[in-house]
Amino acid sequence: MSGDARTGGEAVAAGAPPADWLDAVRWDAAGLVTAIAQEAGTGRILMVASMNREALAETARGGRAVYWSRSRGRLWRKGEESGHGQAVRELRLDCDGDAVLLVVEQDGGIACHTGRASCFFSRLEAGRWVVADPVLKDPGSIYRREPGR
Amino acid sequence: MSGDARTGGEAVAAGAPPADWLDAVRWDAAGLVTAIAQEAGTGRILMVASMNREALAETARGGRAVYWSRSRGRLWRKGEESGHGQAVRELRLDCDGDAVLLVVEQDGGIACHTGRASCFFSRLEAGRWVVADPVLKDPGSIYRREPGR
Repeated sequence: MSGDARTGGEAVAAGAPPADWLDAVRWDAAGLVTAIAQEAGTGRILMVASMNREALAETARGGRAVYWSRSRGRLWRKGEESGHGQAVRELRLDCDGDAVLLVVEQDGGIACHTGRASCFFSRLEAGRWVVADPVLKDPGSIYRREPGR
Repeated sequence: MSGDARTGGEAVAAGAPPADWLDAVRWDAAGLVTAIAQEAGTGRILMVASMNREALAETARGGRAVYWSRSRGRLWRKGEESGHGQAVRELRLDCDGDAVLLVVEQDGGIACHTGRASCFFSRLEAGRWVVADPVLKDPGSIYRREPGR
């Protein structure tokens, strides 16, 4: 039963498959799940975003990363404005079903709206956040209309 | 101003440091932030959890991963029951301040309460989640009292 599948990651993974693999995801009260994009090959963490059921279904179906933009309240097909989409090589679910991992190939090698490879470019050093990674491309040349990811 | 720091990751990272680096984190309504643990060296994503301000402060201070257990409603010093703690080598913040990345050395090479290296052991294959990683240690021998991470 999918009801059982929601309560235990172990049951999801080891027992009978749920009628729908999307039911194995433990969606939060807003219908979202945390999604992490990791670059294939380098293993670099590129970004963290949210997905709703539709976003995850489309991602699995089409092989291109689709998130849910909480700020815009709509599906966010990664790269629709920046051109920096993501080809999904692997999808993983964690043991309690509340986080999804996407192993991706990042178009242009840039995931962040700041023009950096990864959104995690700030590193804690001696009590302050320090920019640790370079801007690879001017955001102004990435976004024709408006900045933002 | 820390108020400004909360609204823009770029300002946080590039401008004057906030009075307190913890103010640069965009805590959610529950006072939590998403925390990802990645294994140093391998780059493997080990787990995703939450941190409150106290957990992140203690993690940075002590160099050992401390999370906030939502199910227990208390600080969760990773490894306190399992022995599988995490030594933190690096802390990173993403561009909009709502996710923290911990690069860690994982005690025992096991992060998951199921006895696996990573909590992301389920992989989507042909419409179902399949266990892709082996159990390295019987959870019954990890937890003397009760299972759970």
